[in-house]
Amino acid sequence: MPFKKRSITLHKKAKGKIETKLKVPLKTSDDLSLAYTPGVGAVCMEIHKNIKNSWEMTNRANLVAIVSDGTAVLGLGDIGAEAGMPVMEGKSAIFKEFANVDSTPLCINTKDPDEIIKFCKQIEPSFGGINLEDISAPRCFDILEKLEKELSIPVFHDDQDGTAIVTLAALINSCRVSGKVLKELSIVVNGAGAAGISITRLLLSQGVKDIILLDSRGAIYKGRANLNKYKKAIAEKTNKMKYKGNLEGALLGADVFIGVSQPNLVSKKMVKNMAENPFIFAMSNPHPEILPADAQGAGAFIVGTGRSDFPNQINNALVFPGLFRGLLDSRAKKVTQKMKISAAIALAYTVKSPTKVKILPKVTDKKAVMAIAAAIAKK
Amino acid sequence: MPFKKRSITLHKKAKGKIETKLKVPLKTSDDLSLAYTPGVGAVCMEIHKNIKNSWEMTNRANLVAIVSDGTAVLGLGDIGAEAGMPVMEGKSAIFKEFANVDSTPLCINTKDPDEIIKFCKQIEPSFGGINLEDISAPRCFDILEKLEKELSIPVFHDDQDGTAIVTLAALINSCRVSGKVLKELSIVVNGAGAAGISITRLLLSQGVKDIILLDSRGAIYKGRANLNKYKKAIAEKTNKMKYKGNLEGALLGADVFIGVSQPNLVSKKMVKNMAENPFIFAMSNPHPEILPADAQGAGAFIVGTGRSDFPNQINNALVFPGLFRGLLDSRAKKVTQKMKISAAIALAYTVKSPTKVKILPKVTDKKAVMAIAAAIAKK
Repeated sequence: MPFKKRSITLHKKAKGKIETKLKVPLKTSDDLSLAYTPGVGAVCMEIHKNIKNSWEMTNRANLVAIVSDGTAVLGLGDIGAEAGMPVMEGKSAIFKEFANVDSTPLCINTKDPDEIIKFCKQIEPSFGGINLEDISAPRCFDILEKLEKELSIPVFHDDQDGTAIVTLAALINSCRVSGKVLKELSIVVNGAGAAGISITRLLLSQGVKDIILLDSRGAIYKGRANLNKYKKAIAEKTNKMKYKGNLEGALLGADVFIGVSQPNLVSKKMVKNMAENPFIFAMSNPHPEILPADAQGAGAFIVGTGRSDFPNQINNALVFPGLFRGLLDSRAKKVTQKMKISAAIALAYTVKSPTKVKILPKVTDKKAVMAIAAAIAKK
Repeated sequence: MPFKKRSITLHKKAKGKIETKLKVPLKTSDDLSLAYTPGVGAVCMEIHKNIKNSWEMTNRANLVAIVSDGTAVLGLGDIGAEAGMPVMEGKSAIFKEFANVDSTPLCINTKDPDEIIKFCKQIEPSFGGINLEDISAPRCFDILEKLEKELSIPVFHDDQDGTAIVTLAALINSCRVSGKVLKELSIVVNGAGAAGISITRLLLSQGVKDIILLDSRGAIYKGRANLNKYKKAIAEKTNKMKYKGNLEGALLGADVFIGVSQPNLVSKKMVKNMAENPFIFAMSNPHPEILPADAQGAGAFIVGTGRSDFPNQINNALVFPGLFRGLLDSRAKKVTQKMKISAAIALAYTVKSPTKVKILPKVTDKKAVMAIAAAIAKK
């Protein structure tokens, strides 16, 4: 039975993936007197006297809100709040299983950026951090920027920075395997949404000079029409030759394809026309831009996707559990650029001897969580 | 060690009372492929195609949001969102332990009724019901009324109707023990907030004719100054003699004292001046209006409080777990007046032979949950 049917069956049977668990006993009247009234009143007053006690006497210090408006769920697009929930419950399950982080999925039915910002500010007293999820670009950039300024708990948009961090880690290790040098790579990023913009920004911060970013209209270059302010800023720093064509042309002679776009956009021929030993990161989810077998058949040196059923899963699930573990453990108030780079390097070097089919640890390997958490807590 | 210290110690040690638990395995890559990508995409699309599937394929059908602004926490008043959390986590633990209902405490930092209403509407796609909690009167009446109209999932303000239901159940059984007749009782309700107003409304619906409701300024009567619209409506139907004095005078010759107000407002002398064999429900939390020993010493026939460390706990914790269990099981969209009355009767009759010291089951007795859930689901 294929994944689709098995997954639907599993979800129907379990009715979702997470539930509430008690951390204290509640069997006797005495238990109730301590966990609830009358005892709980004193706990409330301790927090009322000093709000910092909320980190000691409630679950807040281990609790992350997963907030989504359902506008950019996986590669499926704007499918609505209710339909986004299976992904959010999945993230919540991953948070707990791999990093012992508790979390609350909140799929909300507003798409207004100001309303989403207000919502996140309203829930701040209940949480230790906020993981924004599957919110479409360019709204997600504004939302994240404003929340970073206005919240006193860390906020992280996984589709932006989680994807960028795991992609940088995959590139670092692909270079270790192939002998190519990161800064000298010629890189094509297809998809200029949350992930594509953030990947490009992080690669630029690492000194990569030759990047072309494409959206659904083709290559992004300085002076092109139909660019939002985020694409305009990227156009200043990428595509210095002002290439104006489509993906096929952009890939001619390129070392790396990074796909955060749509299924089946890359053909075997396009891979054949890349530089020698290219890296193909086809991360559209759940259906990649090219299937691994096809990419390999066309000469790809390393192939990664976002999926767990192929080798080299390049998925932000490798990042967000450890990242929030580190943020919560260190009581960080922000996610800094230095943290992101440290996380990528720490993730890459959890693989002692990377190979073509093992450029990253498995998501189920808890080493990644511990390494990233330690790297974040240090910064 | 008194409850205060033990409760603070417990909360610090456990760091809160609830956490996330997985309902599906997440050990292998295959597990991940089913719970997360690529399998989860098909589940999302099933819900996108038919939103009703969100009740079958996510935890929504068993999940309640506990929403509070921290303005009326227990009897402690407006102590803020963070300080309200220990109570909300306590409710969440009770929900799970006694009725297997999952829940998410959300303490939010807005006190604006319109913002609270908007917030509840925004989270609707993620939940099967909303339990409003510890929101001060009279704002809570407006909020509940509007949400009942605008939401398609049931909403329940526990401090209003939960308290009213458990109080009615306690009165029914106090009558069974004493031989007094409910409709003929002379009842004084002290405290005209969420609970006091709702208790009075429910008693009126049961045909009780002689009720005096008091707020901090004294008895509420038709034509009095300083009455909000809810108190005005109550003044039309209660206190027909237009008594204008304080609590002490109101209690002269009364059969029942129902306190949802402040600690220590009732003296032994006041109990002595009531009718023969009075019922004293001193439900201010955590500190009652009069201590049980004092009330008994002054001749009270039956004494109840909101606390679990005295006999006769009259606490909405006896109601909300079973009520939401019934609402969720029957996929009810509203909480009706008939449901509330059925719940009170069902709760009362879980005690086969009530006595002076057992007018209600213990909160830890799951019979109450099952009886209320069945009564709700029938309506």
